[in-house]
Amino acid sequence: MSEYIAPLSDFAFVLDHVTPMDALTGLEAYEAIDRGSVDGVLDEFGRLMSEVWSPTNGIGDEQGTHVEGDSVVMPEGHKEAYLAFQAAGWNSVPFDEAYGGGGFPWLVGIVMQEMLNSANMALAMAPLLTQGAIDAILHHGNEEQKEKYLLKMVAGEWTGTMNLTEPDAGSDVGALRAKAVRHDDGSYRITGQKIFISFGEHDFTDNIVHLVLARTPDAPAGTKGISLFIVPKFLVNDDGSLGERNDVHVVSVEHKMGIKASPTCVLAYGDNSEGAIGYLVGEENAGMRYMFTMMNNARLGVGVQGLGAAQRSYQRAVEYSRERKQGYAPNAVRGEKSFIIEHPDVRRQLLTMRAYTESMRVLAFKAAEQIDYARHAPDEAARTAASEMVDLLIPLTKSYCTDVAETVTSIGIQVHGGMGYIEETGVAQYYRDVKITQIYEGTNGIQAMDLVGRKLPMRGGGVYQDQVARMKATIDDLAAAGEPVDVIHRELSAAVDALEEATGWIMSEGMSDPVQALSAATPYQRLFATTVAGWLMAQKGLAALQVGDAAKGHLVTARFFAEHLLPQVKGLVAPVTAGKTDLFALTADQF
Amino acid sequence: MSEYIAPLSDFAFVLDHVTPMDALTGLEAYEAIDRGSVDGVLDEFGRLMSEVWSPTNGIGDEQGTHVEGDSVVMPEGHKEAYLAFQAAGWNSVPFDEAYGGGGFPWLVGIVMQEMLNSANMALAMAPLLTQGAIDAILHHGNEEQKEKYLLKMVAGEWTGTMNLTEPDAGSDVGALRAKAVRHDDGSYRITGQKIFISFGEHDFTDNIVHLVLARTPDAPAGTKGISLFIVPKFLVNDDGSLGERNDVHVVSVEHKMGIKASPTCVLAYGDNSEGAIGYLVGEENAGMRYMFTMMNNARLGVGVQGLGAAQRSYQRAVEYSRERKQGYAPNAVRGEKSFIIEHPDVRRQLLTMRAYTESMRVLAFKAAEQIDYARHAPDEAARTAASEMVDLLIPLTKSYCTDVAETVTSIGIQVHGGMGYIEETGVAQYYRDVKITQIYEGTNGIQAMDLVGRKLPMRGGGVYQDQVARMKATIDDLAAAGEPVDVIHRELSAAVDALEEATGWIMSEGMSDPVQALSAATPYQRLFATTVAGWLMAQKGLAALQVGDAAKGHLVTARFFAEHLLPQVKGLVAPVTAGKTDLFALTADQF
Repeated sequence: MSEYIAPLSDFAFVLDHVTPMDALTGLEAYEAIDRGSVDGVLDEFGRLMSEVWSPTNGIGDEQGTHVEGDSVVMPEGHKEAYLAFQAAGWNSVPFDEAYGGGGFPWLVGIVMQEMLNSANMALAMAPLLTQGAIDAILHHGNEEQKEKYLLKMVAGEWTGTMNLTEPDAGSDVGALRAKAVRHDDGSYRITGQKIFISFGEHDFTDNIVHLVLARTPDAPAGTKGISLFIVPKFLVNDDGSLGERNDVHVVSVEHKMGIKASPTCVLAYGDNSEGAIGYLVGEENAGMRYMFTMMNNARLGVGVQGLGAAQRSYQRAVEYSRERKQGYAPNAVRGEKSFIIEHPDVRRQLLTMRAYTESMRVLAFKAAEQIDYARHAPDEAARTAASEMVDLLIPLTKSYCTDVAETVTSIGIQVHGGMGYIEETGVAQYYRDVKITQIYEGTNGIQAMDLVGRKLPMRGGGVYQDQVARMKATIDDLAAAGEPVDVIHRELSAAVDALEEATGWIMSEGMSDPVQALSAATPYQRLFATTVAGWLMAQKGLAALQVGDAAKGHLVTARFFAEHLLPQVKGLVAPVTAGKTDLFALTADQF
Repeated sequence: MSEYIAPLSDFAFVLDHVTPMDALTGLEAYEAIDRGSVDGVLDEFGRLMSEVWSPTNGIGDEQGTHVEGDSVVMPEGHKEAYLAFQAAGWNSVPFDEAYGGGGFPWLVGIVMQEMLNSANMALAMAPLLTQGAIDAILHHGNEEQKEKYLLKMVAGEWTGTMNLTEPDAGSDVGALRAKAVRHDDGSYRITGQKIFISFGEHDFTDNIVHLVLARTPDAPAGTKGISLFIVPKFLVNDDGSLGERNDVHVVSVEHKMGIKASPTCVLAYGDNSEGAIGYLVGEENAGMRYMFTMMNNARLGVGVQGLGAAQRSYQRAVEYSRERKQGYAPNAVRGEKSFIIEHPDVRRQLLTMRAYTESMRVLAFKAAEQIDYARHAPDEAARTAASEMVDLLIPLTKSYCTDVAETVTSIGIQVHGGMGYIEETGVAQYYRDVKITQIYEGTNGIQAMDLVGRKLPMRGGGVYQDQVARMKATIDDLAAAGEPVDVIHRELSAAVDALEEATGWIMSEGMSDPVQALSAATPYQRLFATTVAGWLMAQKGLAALQVGDAAKGHLVTARFFAEHLLPQVKGLVAPVTAGKTDLFALTADQF
């Protein structure tokens, strides 16, 4: 099994033509950055991923993690891999220079995240969760908190975690019951238990900064009574040195289907004291709002996990199908066995994997690019427009990239035949790993509810209309470009028509009756996301046509996407417009 | 976690209305059987599956199997479960009475197979493989072989295995290299190694009968030079007693993603002698033809594995969603948390699982029913027609039931949220187990090649035309039945139109250029199978309409299938008719 190789040429094509890096580095905030420095980062980082991270991936899956006493034993090589990443300063690349960051666009950070996830998705959870915690403190912490925690976290010297879930509060965060009691000195004492805490305990770094949601004694019920606290594993003295061990301890780690090198911890707070010491972030009862500000980044990050796993699975499938001889392809030289890549159905499998993976990439990179514009575009109208586009794209990106990653990694097994089902081959791991991405950070069903309930109604449907206008402009470009993109023009036009029909139904039926909207949400989400992916792939196709022969692969893949994958949307209009009737025709007992 | 409960009421509805058992038991071959005895078998067998097999399922997944010396250590309770099944005579139910069978229709055997697979799919491999070996000896063995082996195998006292695959001969069976040299006494000496031999070694029974494909020294190359041999683990004396240990030994078992309680063995023949002693079945060089006669049953059996896993996953999801409270459904009483089954998106998930599972069932049962008619219909024309229908339905059933089972078991995890990803919950196992069914017994890509290359051209397209005529007749019935099945009428009509368009393209483009047909094969297979499934679900819907209120669940599920799942076919015409161009636009290096 060969190691991961970063797909630098596809990165470059997207950064040239779909999410132009030159435009982004033209912003004042990124004036110190140029395309050359971006390419340098990606190139060097890709090498670290290939050489250091990728070889640990199978080991982590095989060994998993377990609790010994108060700590979690990590699989071999994982600490070294994390520290190699940290010591070289890679964790800081996309963060604010004021806190020791590299000041690169978020888009660059997302490209790096793809590589992290391709190389070792379970290990990549450590920086991913740290990023969420950084976001929380950066946007809502006070100056003292920023000084105490942020510098170390941006440097990756300490990791961060997000502590939301409790046994009866998964998707329904408002139901959580962990308690926080205010102490005289302004700190709080936290008691309770949290589950599903990724990297809740490990031995990579000498401190871990837990971001914990809990309720103060008089807090209102539901989501309006949740506060956010910093609960460090070791208390931090004013001089920055580490103090006492805080009363937050790992109870157990879960035995999961995948991402086995990521310790999914049950954490107990205050079992041996009046409570773990915590520090309020921002104001009491505003925790849920703070979570929302982190949500876009976190959900995009999960989508990128799907992308990373899909890319790795695709590489492995291509490699195997170039080396494995079996049977005779239709046009094989008589008597000479064919590499399986010459069989039409294997080519269809590989192109399906490739086109899906590229479509995930353009979608995720587009969302990241818009995050950058939302932060740093020169005028407010542009920032608002970008911010709206991010809000719209996030549920689409999270759900599409993770649903499609399941399909891609499944085909990756299939290309390997029976060998794919044998764990030593290593391709089953991507499939097992990636399944969690459809579930956490808001299940894809939750994403769909977010889409129809919050995103579609934004600005009275105006944000949606803007997206349709962008897609129609591309359809015009396709019409002008002629024959080589005829099929893309035909299928993207049909997809936008299907989207308009489905949206029209939701706008009329669903806005007056939320049950109608919720009943339609999941197929609508897939229809919408596939259409947007088709639009971005069409842009790749148009760019490839301009570039000419050197970009032939991009044109072929864009055409394949349009003709083979995008037409799915035609089958999604009926499920959207079917409405609630049959869904609620049976009582719970009748199932 | 509760145990498996056989879905007896859905079995009864299908056996009443879609594959009428009364018509089948009216055949002379089944004159000793009536509906009452069938129901008795299913009821009692279902109890054994619930009480004895189902509790072993998680244990088998956790413990797996391993080799110790010359034998395979099986997980706890599995031998006892197998012996309970065997001792009660269940293995013999659908086999010929002449060899100790129960003389029941194959359809009854398939219903039982569904239950076996729901209860413990890995363990069910033991009887499934034995059935394949029985088929081989029954149809092609001589009288002495039948007497020596069949009685014991039908009774389940000895199990059987199928030994085809070698490291370089997976889908390409013709490439195998195991050798068979004829000895003076008419027996053969077999040398070589086989891989992927399910239940190649175990301790359930005191003998194992291996059916082995090998080449004689002067055999022609490829599939025309393959012979089939009986290679018993212990030689059998003329009085039926066991003699010497034969030189076939387990080398290792695979470490797989799923079906961990099924030992997937590497077997070595003749490592300690001039060869394992084998007995030719039928004639030399006819082995491949013999394999083909077993193929329909074996492939149907794999489809039923998908069905069984899907059914179990559905039951678990329903159970969980009735017990788990989270959030507030749109019409919940204020302040009272809802069972998740009341959330629209969870209902959509459950109905998707239910409708897909029922569609797999009608498809598999229809294929089994036609196997019975192909064997026992009174006149030859009816036997031929049924046999043709079987040939057409087999690739559709194998691929559809296994592809859709992946989707169903994936949703089964999703309904459980984060808990679904934790192995102790038990629902991830169905997903991991069922993935192999898309691969073995001919990958689903091979099924698609079989469909377009062998099945579609049967009788100049006449077999296909007959199927279309049957579906059009049902469309007429739907039109006559009016409003309650309007959506089914609309969507089945559209699906048959899509099928006709796709078939027309393959018949014109694909028959003159096999690369075109092979390029279109997989999406065509899905389109065709989904349409046939939609046709059979429509029959359920029509029957439910007749029955009235008591069958409301069947009508709702049939409508849901038509409106939510059947429309997928609209997105499959473009991929079929896209042809080979983009598939072969890139060289192998350009991927």
